[in-house]
Amino acid sequence: MPEINGARLIADLRRLAEFGKYKTGVHRPTYTADDMAARRWLMDRMTEAGLEPSIDGIGTVLGRGKSRGPRLLLGSHVETQPYSGWLDGAMGVLYGLEIARAFAEDRTTAELGIDVGAWADEEGHYLSLLGSRSFCGEVTEQQIDATRNAQTGKPLREALAEAGLAGKPRERLDPKRYVGYLEAHVEQGDTLDSGGLKLGIVTGIVGIQTYNLTFHGQQNHAGTTRMAVRKDAGVALIKFANMIEERFPKVVGPRSVWTTGKITLDPGAPSVIPGKAEMLFQFRDVDPERLLLLERTLEEIVRESNERGPCRAVLEPVSRVTPSAMDAKFQDALEWAAERQAPKLHLRMPSAAGHDAQIFARHLRAGMLFVPSIGGVSHHFSEDTKEDDIVLGCQVFTAAAERILREAA
Amino acid sequence: MPEINGARLIADLRRLAEFGKYKTGVHRPTYTADDMAARRWLMDRMTEAGLEPSIDGIGTVLGRGKSRGPRLLLGSHVETQPYSGWLDGAMGVLYGLEIARAFAEDRTTAELGIDVGAWADEEGHYLSLLGSRSFCGEVTEQQIDATRNAQTGKPLREALAEAGLAGKPRERLDPKRYVGYLEAHVEQGDTLDSGGLKLGIVTGIVGIQTYNLTFHGQQNHAGTTRMAVRKDAGVALIKFANMIEERFPKVVGPRSVWTTGKITLDPGAPSVIPGKAEMLFQFRDVDPERLLLLERTLEEIVRESNERGPCRAVLEPVSRVTPSAMDAKFQDALEWAAERQAPKLHLRMPSAAGHDAQIFARHLRAGMLFVPSIGGVSHHFSEDTKEDDIVLGCQVFTAAAERILREAA
Repeated sequence: MPEINGARLIADLRRLAEFGKYKTGVHRPTYTADDMAARRWLMDRMTEAGLEPSIDGIGTVLGRGKSRGPRLLLGSHVETQPYSGWLDGAMGVLYGLEIARAFAEDRTTAELGIDVGAWADEEGHYLSLLGSRSFCGEVTEQQIDATRNAQTGKPLREALAEAGLAGKPRERLDPKRYVGYLEAHVEQGDTLDSGGLKLGIVTGIVGIQTYNLTFHGQQNHAGTTRMAVRKDAGVALIKFANMIEERFPKVVGPRSVWTTGKITLDPGAPSVIPGKAEMLFQFRDVDPERLLLLERTLEEIVRESNERGPCRAVLEPVSRVTPSAMDAKFQDALEWAAERQAPKLHLRMPSAAGHDAQIFARHLRAGMLFVPSIGGVSHHFSEDTKEDDIVLGCQVFTAAAERILREAA
Repeated sequence: MPEINGARLIADLRRLAEFGKYKTGVHRPTYTADDMAARRWLMDRMTEAGLEPSIDGIGTVLGRGKSRGPRLLLGSHVETQPYSGWLDGAMGVLYGLEIARAFAEDRTTAELGIDVGAWADEEGHYLSLLGSRSFCGEVTEQQIDATRNAQTGKPLREALAEAGLAGKPRERLDPKRYVGYLEAHVEQGDTLDSGGLKLGIVTGIVGIQTYNLTFHGQQNHAGTTRMAVRKDAGVALIKFANMIEERFPKVVGPRSVWTTGKITLDPGAPSVIPGKAEMLFQFRDVDPERLLLLERTLEEIVRESNERGPCRAVLEPVSRVTPSAMDAKFQDALEWAAERQAPKLHLRMPSAAGHDAQIFARHLRAGMLFVPSIGGVSHHFSEDTKEDDIVLGCQVFTAAAERILREAA
């Protein structure tokens, strides 16, 4: 059984965190100089590990192993959210690198194949999960033409050109090359940390449905317009949002989440009755049936709101990410490995955040492993995980990968 | 009894509406070239009417009558809201001008004194009721130094300099000079128009209390943070605002109004739990006891919200305008004149909007007369009143002014 080198793994993680270091975290948005330097550094480490690295036209770094046996694809992303954590994404990529090294160093596993991928822009500075979507054939050239940086508005094409990637071909997944895809990640929630657990075996990645709700009323003077004749779009929104808070707890599942993230009253002045009001509403669940029920509940509230009047509510879907189930056998292998190395300190759980694995799950058998994040902190420079937990996670991930590959052999 | 010249009044109103004409309305913000041209035009009309016009350091145009008898101050404002109506403010000023002319032309009233004022910036491009506050000694030089245009940020001092008013002294009310202050205005609501009424005798001008409410929660990932551990400031705000809508109808008076004019969730993204939420809330009533009850109710909701948790609600008063009662004898005089010329087509009513009269009411006996606004439209270029109603209003106003002056003689 291959042995990882925990000190080497931690040292590599610390070194990678130097690119764009910010306080105790990292600021490394996709295609910035720091991000590209990190990708080049990663390719050098892949070469040292005996992998054949390449970078493609969307910035994806892929390190191909040379062995001929059954093969797993391991990966995650290396860019970060703004002023964010040092492990989010990076840890999953360097687990892959460490496992490739450990497998190569052990005669019993030297013939088991490991490819390692760092998918560009999972964090969506330009487009969420861009690299994995591109690699899986889900992004057209036209989409790339049309995409801009969500914050700055810079065209994706311009960013790719500045990063030296213009004109490079985009790599494309060959599903026959792999037994499946595995990804490790920090949890980004506090389920493991608050429960004193060490490992999360991901059962699936949640679906996310986001809606815009617009309420049409009548703008008017907030002094002279009597309450009885008002069509206050703000009041309509408040009652609607309150109804969600009353109704949703009765229909959600134990891990459903729902959030009103933004509210705008128009014109937004103290002495003017809002003529228009808008809210962004989102819910997540791993179960497609539950998502359907939540959407029906939302539509029902819209119907009731419109029956009650006097404002008109309009519901528009903004985006819809379908849930991705993780492969049952992969879950078993991860759980078996977890139980061996951390008995009873593991839990099967859905991922409430999106990951590259949800794209791969449409094309390959896929699995995910979580390690605890201290205090559940995520997307903040204070995000952290104990070094022992990072090393334990990599050992479990290694054992599961070996078992999956042996079963496929 | 003096006779006004209805055609002359309408012609003057139409001419004044040419300054800054916009569609069927007027765009004439305070101290703009159009506004200053309108003020100069008004001073010329005052001179023709036998008044002695002056413009002071805050832009107030005052036309002093020359007679020695008891004296009324009549007035309103000539600047407009952006892209707004042709009568709001202008009508009250030109009523004063027309009455001054009618009194002078009639031997029986030639010795009754009329002064006419056009108070600058009632509409608050810089500071609500600036001219009347200044005239009544309620504005310091330091306040003028600190005031900026609410939209553009231009310093008031700069605007005054550009308008040629820098260094001019500011006129100051001599309360002994006047029997009282009278102001006429379009209603800005639909009570008269929808009721088929012609005249509103204002009983008082509402008090306005405006509050900022801040909810402090904890910003977090909208996917990975379970509902049970969230401190969602947006949800706290929604429940709070909904509680207002449930509780206020039980404690308000028949003419109370309340409005949530602005809501902000921070950071305002679909996938982030708001860590902070703010709302601007305002209520109005003419009765000080009622205002107190409404404030207590609001404080009670804050207390309950904080007891319930998990977010902390903080209530901060933003501004407080105390209600102004109109003089009882002035109301009687206006009602007597209304009943003579439009039997049963008048109503005693509070003003739900602010007016210069509320400032004068602290220093003089004050009264106000409303004429109907078609459809209750206000602060929009489509604001309008039938010419017959404008003329009728001026006749009633004239008769009431005469009666008040005779009773004072």
